[in-house]
Amino acid sequence: MDTNHLINFASDNSAPVAPEIMAALLAVNQGPALGYGNDSVTRGFEEQLKDVFECDLRAFPVATGTAANALGLSVMVPPYGSIFAHRLGHIETDECGAPEFYTGGAKIALQDGENGKLDAAHLDKVLSQSGAGNVHHIQPAVLSLTQTTECGTVYTEAEVAALSATAKAHGLGVHMDGARFANAVVSLDCAPADVTVKAGVDILSLGATKNGAMAVEAVVFFNQEKAQEFEFRRKRGAHLFSKMRYFSAQLDAYFADGLWLKFAHHANEMASRLAAGLASSDTASLLYPVEANMVFTKISGEAMAKLEKSNVLFYPEGPKEDSVIRLVASWNTTSEEVDAVLSLIG
Amino acid sequence: MDTNHLINFASDNSAPVAPEIMAALLAVNQGPALGYGNDSVTRGFEEQLKDVFECDLRAFPVATGTAANALGLSVMVPPYGSIFAHRLGHIETDECGAPEFYTGGAKIALQDGENGKLDAAHLDKVLSQSGAGNVHHIQPAVLSLTQTTECGTVYTEAEVAALSATAKAHGLGVHMDGARFANAVVSLDCAPADVTVKAGVDILSLGATKNGAMAVEAVVFFNQEKAQEFEFRRKRGAHLFSKMRYFSAQLDAYFADGLWLKFAHHANEMASRLAAGLASSDTASLLYPVEANMVFTKISGEAMAKLEKSNVLFYPEGPKEDSVIRLVASWNTTSEEVDAVLSLIG
Amino acid sequence: MDTNHLINFASDNSAPVAPEIMAALLAVNQGPALGYGNDSVTRGFEEQLKDVFECDLRAFPVATGTAANALGLSVMVPPYGSIFAHRLGHIETDECGAPEFYTGGAKIALQDGENGKLDAAHLDKVLSQSGAGNVHHIQPAVLSLTQTTECGTVYTEAEVAALSATAKAHGLGVHMDGARFANAVVSLDCAPADVTVKAGVDILSLGATKNGAMAVEAVVFFNQEKAQEFEFRRKRGAHLFSKMRYFSAQLDAYFADGLWLKFAHHANEMASRLAAGLASSDTASLLYPVEANMVFTKISGEAMAKLEKSNVLFYPEGPKEDSVIRLVASWNTTSEEVDAVLSLIG
Amino acid sequence: MDTNHLINFASDNSAPVAPEIMAALLAVNQGPALGYGNDSVTRGFEEQLKDVFECDLRAFPVATGTAANALGLSVMVPPYGSIFAHRLGHIETDECGAPEFYTGGAKIALQDGENGKLDAAHLDKVLSQSGAGNVHHIQPAVLSLTQTTECGTVYTEAEVAALSATAKAHGLGVHMDGARFANAVVSLDCAPADVTVKAGVDILSLGATKNGAMAVEAVVFFNQEKAQEFEFRRKRGAHLFSKMRYFSAQLDAYFADGLWLKFAHHANEMASRLAAGLASSDTASLLYPVEANMVFTKISGEAMAKLEKSNVLFYPEGPKEDSVIRLVASWNTTSEEVDAVLSLIG
Repeated sequence: MDTNHLINFASDNSAPVAPEIMAALLAVNQGPALGYGNDSVTRGFEEQLKDVFECDLRAFPVATGTAANALGLSVMVPPYGSIFAHRLGHIETDECGAPEFYTGGAKIALQDGENGKLDAAHLDKVLSQSGAGNVHHIQPAVLSLTQTTECGTVYTEAEVAALSATAKAHGLGVHMDGARFANAVVSLDCAPADVTVKAGVDILSLGATKNGAMAVEAVVFFNQEKAQEFEFRRKRGAHLFSKMRYFSAQLDAYFADGLWLKFAHHANEMASRLAAGLASSDTASLLYPVEANMVFTKISGEAMAKLEKSNVLFYPEGPKEDSVIRLVASWNTTSEEVDAVLSLIG
Repeated sequence: MDTNHLINFASDNSAPVAPEIMAALLAVNQGPALGYGNDSVTRGFEEQLKDVFECDLRAFPVATGTAANALGLSVMVPPYGSIFAHRLGHIETDECGAPEFYTGGAKIALQDGENGKLDAAHLDKVLSQSGAGNVHHIQPAVLSLTQTTECGTVYTEAEVAALSATAKAHGLGVHMDGARFANAVVSLDCAPADVTVKAGVDILSLGATKNGAMAVEAVVFFNQEKAQEFEFRRKRGAHLFSKMRYFSAQLDAYFADGLWLKFAHHANEMASRLAAGLASSDTASLLYPVEANMVFTKISGEAMAKLEKSNVLFYPEGPKEDSVIRLVASWNTTSEEVDAVLSLIG
Repeated sequence: MDTNHLINFASDNSAPVAPEIMAALLAVNQGPALGYGNDSVTRGFEEQLKDVFECDLRAFPVATGTAANALGLSVMVPPYGSIFAHRLGHIETDECGAPEFYTGGAKIALQDGENGKLDAAHLDKVLSQSGAGNVHHIQPAVLSLTQTTECGTVYTEAEVAALSATAKAHGLGVHMDGARFANAVVSLDCAPADVTVKAGVDILSLGATKNGAMAVEAVVFFNQEKAQEFEFRRKRGAHLFSKMRYFSAQLDAYFADGLWLKFAHHANEMASRLAAGLASSDTASLLYPVEANMVFTKISGEAMAKLEKSNVLFYPEGPKEDSVIRLVASWNTTSEEVDAVLSLIG
Repeated sequence: MDTNHLINFASDNSAPVAPEIMAALLAVNQGPALGYGNDSVTRGFEEQLKDVFECDLRAFPVATGTAANALGLSVMVPPYGSIFAHRLGHIETDECGAPEFYTGGAKIALQDGENGKLDAAHLDKVLSQSGAGNVHHIQPAVLSLTQTTECGTVYTEAEVAALSATAKAHGLGVHMDGARFANAVVSLDCAPADVTVKAGVDILSLGATKNGAMAVEAVVFFNQEKAQEFEFRRKRGAHLFSKMRYFSAQLDAYFADGLWLKFAHHANEMASRLAAGLASSDTASLLYPVEANMVFTKISGEAMAKLEKSNVLFYPEGPKEDSVIRLVASWNTTSEEVDAVLSLIG
């Protein structure tokens, strides 16, 4: 494997930082600035987000998607509460219990659903039998939706609105894990507000790291009631940065001139190209509709063997012998790289 | 106040990022890299630290000093344990309860001590009466020393060794909050190992952010027993970065060619210059010996008024009318800036 | 409903305290005794249990089954660990998150299994894919078995041994929720050791409250390694009683002269009589094999209506219109009461 | 030491259960009752307390004073909050961190004060400098007063009112640890409401175990806002008893016909007799005013030696060689026992 020419389909977070983001870091590196967010860049980024979402809001930078999710949930769920989420959700499978830690021991109530998506009718039924008010049972507290889902599919505005309405009818708040939110917005070709604040979302983890930034996500409070509590929990969780301007600057550049959507648009296109190629293959099949920048595919054993010996970075899904893999396109994936992978899979 | 020419004595974390650190970020921004620390830069930084401390060790980057402290303590203290620390320690006063959060509710047993330093004889007496083994009492678990202390003083090698020996005689582990560790090493003119691993320290929070980095500290395990547990707790605390190389690269540059000591040496010198000027003033007095890069001084009311109207950033200690202030020198403080402050204080 | 002649099939914990237990409370109520377990009754009960289980052990009284489970698990599972348990387990469904609270946020990994029982082969497969050692995933830490199960079935000695061996092969500890342990021992007609310490169980919650006591369960440590930690966690959880003798005395009487087995034998017999009657009914059917003192049955709608108007206490399982009910026999259930219920169900 | 005729001055919780309480347990032991507090005895005890405190309220039985305190505080203090309490408070010194556990890691902010009592003016000053609203600091959340104090002194109605008013002026709630509340009420000769609900107390831990009960305390909510949350936290803390009637029956008997005040009156009188005897001794001195049922006294070395060889149960305060001891009178202490101790001390 020639490590000098690695082709990255392992994850969008294996990609480097975009030059526009790096430039923003250099630009902000001038003279002193008061710490912990008391700087003009941090204030500016929050103002910018109000324009993006066409509403008043509070927004706070943190450096990991797990921090964004766990801290956001921590102000929505009491220790004796539960979080309704898809069985494949990142908060369940890939955060080593961070939501449980930050909430003080809440439970994640796992739900099934096709293509990584929850279903409003099913949710309604489950919530109706969830023991709300019964002192022996953990109390339903929040619905957490992943947008783009872990299967690379996207909830429509109507689906988010229906799920939120169901959750709220049962007294739950609505959280969105938007580690790949940009890819969903591009996929839906909607206004960011349409699939969040206007569809009932209270708190959004808005990712940037996977889409060209170095290490930053915004926790966006459309419902600002718990924003002050969040600030205490963020500090207590050790996620309040002294040199905050360098995190805010990444977000500032990310949202400026639609950079975030440009990158997501490109990554989605590369995934489409990849999906189209696989769809026309005799030996490969797609596991889920490809609606954003992730492709899950079952390939032949020979293709698997070839890929493993190649300079392509990727992760198998499940046991290697099943030859099911995940391929993720990034802001800097090239069509040549897509075609190189397709030629290996055959 | 001319914000274009602010003079920063507010904090070393209000200073910008050093050009050497920025250059390292740009240098590492090439091609893909596997996430979460599975990259060569992260492995390299750990190797480099083995040289710095002349021993085998494990070391992990996190992005805040509070994270370094709280996560380090979390593997040393059971929920029913206590942390012996100075009353002025950052873990008590400035972390919004992060150690309590990360340990699951341990208690900080606050101790007094001159000039921000704990005393071994006093510690021995306190530990002898601490109720170890008694089921009604929180159990003594760890001694946490701050080096450089919150008063800007420095523990000698012998003092650290005596305190560690006392702690260990009572069955406690030893943690060091080294947010300004570089400044202490320079002040002592010792090998980094002399005041840590050779003096009985088990886990060190080694700061870089306050000394020229953007956002990174190393949690150093001289005692590696709990290093694996640390990795789970770091992830669970949401402090495992996907694009880890950008944090490791800062540390790599920080320790390369003694940059960390060069910066600390400069900051200490600027603080000495400031202290010398204040010592010769008729109206100002120093609160503590100036042994590193922090100066605590009581100034005249007129000087206070002048400072407040000037372009100097600083923090009062306690009520403004007391005219006690903290002045912190940074890697980029200039002698002209020191002299400008001195001329204001008079 | 004549509340003076209520017939209790609601729960074995709706039954009164047995006269032998009451007599023990009166007997111990003489003069002063040092608090918190430093009394001779508490020491005596522990000695007695060593005879019951034919081995050295430590044992501690607590007052609820939830406390026994949660405290026992708290010394077996790190905050970043998981507890493998049946989906119907009391620790999941009826403790309002106590295990999560006491462990500091561990996760319960829910498993399916016929008749409320886990299967060793299935467990082995699940544990093989559980992400042990992967920092992104909660770490498998303990297997928790319920004996008697929530379905009223009983694990055989061989089944417990196979499950324990599987758990231990993957590095997990073994916990047993024995709220109805006596009923299982009677059902198996085995020595208590055969289905616990000799079958690989490390820590047992041994219930007494549901079987004639007032409020006491013993947490039994066959593996004594964590017994001291338990004592701190028990106090910290506020479950260390000052007047401990009154809790220990209940256990003392419970185990004296086989009272616990006598009561369980009676309750199991009453459940058998009930099951036999239902089995011969045209309209009722049993949901699970009746192996201890609990009967789950689907009855006719008319029977349901009759029962609801009667003086019989019971709980429906699920929606009332399904006419599925749980009937639990107690130490003081009479055959007349069984027959009265049968005559109502028809 | 003749263990058949032990004289108990060790603690009021080393005394046996009063016959009236035992009789209540026997009386309630008739037939079945629904579990978890859904019984008439539990409802009745709450009604009775409304009369005792002349107001509407919610009240819940738990079995330990630590549970009452920790659970009560858990609904008043966020994880990032602090509890202002006297340095000698039981919640700090004798609960192995239960308040930290139940609150999710809150901090106890320790205060000094003569005779075990906090001072309103001092509290006001401390709260003014406590960093309320500053994200780096734990946030002041509750004042916890101990009544009777750990020194055996009693806050007057005016003192409680002044402290409560100060706390509330700074936004804090008011908690009272009333493990020996009855002794304080008797000492003040006031209505129970005067020193609680009318003096600004929100939640009261009302002890019974130390005053004749077997194992029960009432958590009384004058401010009912958080009563429902309490119920979830109680269950989650494993303190919801299935056979609740046996706990409620103790409280029922305790408050019936003023039994609680009768017992406290007797214990206080015995302590007064003891204090009078010590005051007239040449070699003994009292450490604090004796206002309830506890006496702290420094005695001669010879007296200490005699006591240690006698049949008197007591605890030294601090190192034995200081000859400072605590003597606690109970509901069943006799004047002969008092005189026997006095004759030993001489």
